[in-house]
Amino acid sequence: MIYLDNAATTKVFDCAIEAMEQTMKDCFFNPNATYKRAIDAKKGIDSARKTIADCLKVRADEIVFTSCATESNNWVMNCGRKRPKGNVVISAGEHSSVYEPAMQLKNRGIDVRIVPLLKSGIIDEGAFSRAVDENTTFVSIIHVNNETGAINPIKRLVDTTKRLAPNALFHSDGVQGALKTKDTISSLGVDFYSASAHKLGAPKGIGFLYIKNGINIAPMLYGGGQEDGKRSGTQNTPYIAAFAAAVEHLAAIDKSHVLPLRNELAEHFKSHGCTVIGDDNNSGYILGVVIPGVKAEILQNAVCDRDVIIGKGAACSGAKRGNRVLSAIGLTDKQIECYVRLSFAADTYRDEAMKAAQIITETAQKIRSENV
Amino acid sequence: MIYLDNAATTKVFDCAIEAMEQTMKDCFFNPNATYKRAIDAKKGIDSARKTIADCLKVRADEIVFTSCATESNNWVMNCGRKRPKGNVVISAGEHSSVYEPAMQLKNRGIDVRIVPLLKSGIIDEGAFSRAVDENTTFVSIIHVNNETGAINPIKRLVDTTKRLAPNALFHSDGVQGALKTKDTISSLGVDFYSASAHKLGAPKGIGFLYIKNGINIAPMLYGGGQEDGKRSGTQNTPYIAAFAAAVEHLAAIDKSHVLPLRNELAEHFKSHGCTVIGDDNNSGYILGVVIPGVKAEILQNAVCDRDVIIGKGAACSGAKRGNRVLSAIGLTDKQIECYVRLSFAADTYRDEAMKAAQIITETAQKIRSENV
Repeated sequence: MIYLDNAATTKVFDCAIEAMEQTMKDCFFNPNATYKRAIDAKKGIDSARKTIADCLKVRADEIVFTSCATESNNWVMNCGRKRPKGNVVISAGEHSSVYEPAMQLKNRGIDVRIVPLLKSGIIDEGAFSRAVDENTTFVSIIHVNNETGAINPIKRLVDTTKRLAPNALFHSDGVQGALKTKDTISSLGVDFYSASAHKLGAPKGIGFLYIKNGINIAPMLYGGGQEDGKRSGTQNTPYIAAFAAAVEHLAAIDKSHVLPLRNELAEHFKSHGCTVIGDDNNSGYILGVVIPGVKAEILQNAVCDRDVIIGKGAACSGAKRGNRVLSAIGLTDKQIECYVRLSFAADTYRDEAMKAAQIITETAQKIRSENV
Repeated sequence: MIYLDNAATTKVFDCAIEAMEQTMKDCFFNPNATYKRAIDAKKGIDSARKTIADCLKVRADEIVFTSCATESNNWVMNCGRKRPKGNVVISAGEHSSVYEPAMQLKNRGIDVRIVPLLKSGIIDEGAFSRAVDENTTFVSIIHVNNETGAINPIKRLVDTTKRLAPNALFHSDGVQGALKTKDTISSLGVDFYSASAHKLGAPKGIGFLYIKNGINIAPMLYGGGQEDGKRSGTQNTPYIAAFAAAVEHLAAIDKSHVLPLRNELAEHFKSHGCTVIGDDNNSGYILGVVIPGVKAEILQNAVCDRDVIIGKGAACSGAKRGNRVLSAIGLTDKQIECYVRLSFAADTYRDEAMKAAQIITETAQKIRSENV
């Protein structure tokens, strides 16, 4: 099977699972209890937090574990914004876990400004500069778009924000960005950054919110006071260990081949009459292609029968009709129907990927000819 | 090692872990994607939901998976209560994940009424009837207290609430109650019920909120629309499978010996001059004891050296000074310092438990004699 809807390398996943299983045995105890073996479990969490922080070049106390990036995004979008005050700026390319909370703020009377995207998938920087003003209290711009792989210039957007609205806080959804671009969280200058473990090779069900040292935020969950009082709830010790193992292994892997492979695949699709989204500056982990005349769902199932797995937009929007982000970059409904997303891991092999691309274009041609 | 701070049987835990590991392999795919193997993962979640619902005698669509009961409790405490309106009734014995959100409501100007507890640990029903009135919009009363094992008469409290405040919604934190009392969720008549998988034998990091059919609630997390739009975020498929396996196995186990064993242990401690919290109607899974003249922390560490693990109040309150719930049942600060909590699983063996009780009272006597 060739799996082109995959964010995680097999090797990293195996390491993560091994760490999880070991921790499930060794650190079964409640990390918040007061006896020795429970304290060992707590130490395991602290050590995992430090590993992740070191690999991402942030402080350990800036990482708060959550159950997923959707939780991280909802948390940061909602905290401290109970009353209409100032304005909030997001982009049209945000993941639904930022976009939908923003729509809730709008329903509560908050001025939410949505910055349009360029055709390449990145944010319109001119429009962004016009949207942010001295009354802006919060900005949330996705680092790497999950549908298209477009990389937003977060550092410049942060600088623009701090210049025009010195008190505004800046969040970036880094689910597809963490360890997958040359930027580090601190080099971006953001106040908040969300990440999801399962995009880095660990299991689904764990994520974090980076909260810059010195920034205060209302807790996500109240209760036992876990996570330094910011996110109560008994910690998922085994998944936290898996998360740290995945980050540590992924950080050490050479990833320089990923973008060239993505661009080579892009050329293959272009030479077969397809429209590729984004340019050579795109994330190397995502390739969005419009394959004309073939509905994505039909193609997805047809190539699945030939052991190739591809995405049909992001899984989080899989079941919905249309696609807000693809519409925002100017794709027509007809193009969106024919849009497939290939995503890669750092160990996606060139031979396999090229073979899969060949199967996809062949299958598309077959479907088209049968429909004539 | 004799582990008397344990909510899960070894056998159930092993079954849960086996289900988790199998699912981690077989259902790696994102359950929200649209290709066949992803759809299989989605079917796995649906099947787990049905298993849990069947064992708890509720409808499958009444179970919404969350990352923990703290999340379930925070969710139900916050939803729909953005503006001060009516009053909210809780008890002094609520877990901090209900109590702290209630304090947040109070800070926002909502009339939060806290019903006192009786010495046995259960709610003062007379005071409850006086607290609830026609302006009550929400009630949250813990089913089985996590510090003392006191079982509240939820069915009667629901009936009282519906009589005095027909429009009020009733939530019960069932973390220590689900599958551990004779009541089923539907027999209790509650609108909401929270549960945590790790109190039933599955790993830490998964829970659910039961939402009675026909009751509407604002989503916990917005985004991709998972969990029927009520709790977005990629589901933790392996832990959901583990949760279902644990519930299924625990539901099938004979648990009739648990309460008699707890009461036999209670007699042992009473005969050694200790004060036992609660009476014979207590939960069989929790035994709270004041061991006079010996600080709980010192005793906990001393018996740990003899391979007996006991709790010092609930883990969620472990690191904090004092204990709100124990104060509420009239224990003095001095008694609280000497309070230990023994908790049992359905497979805690009598011989082991009695041996541990002997070690605890012997060690206490030794500590006391050394301090003279």
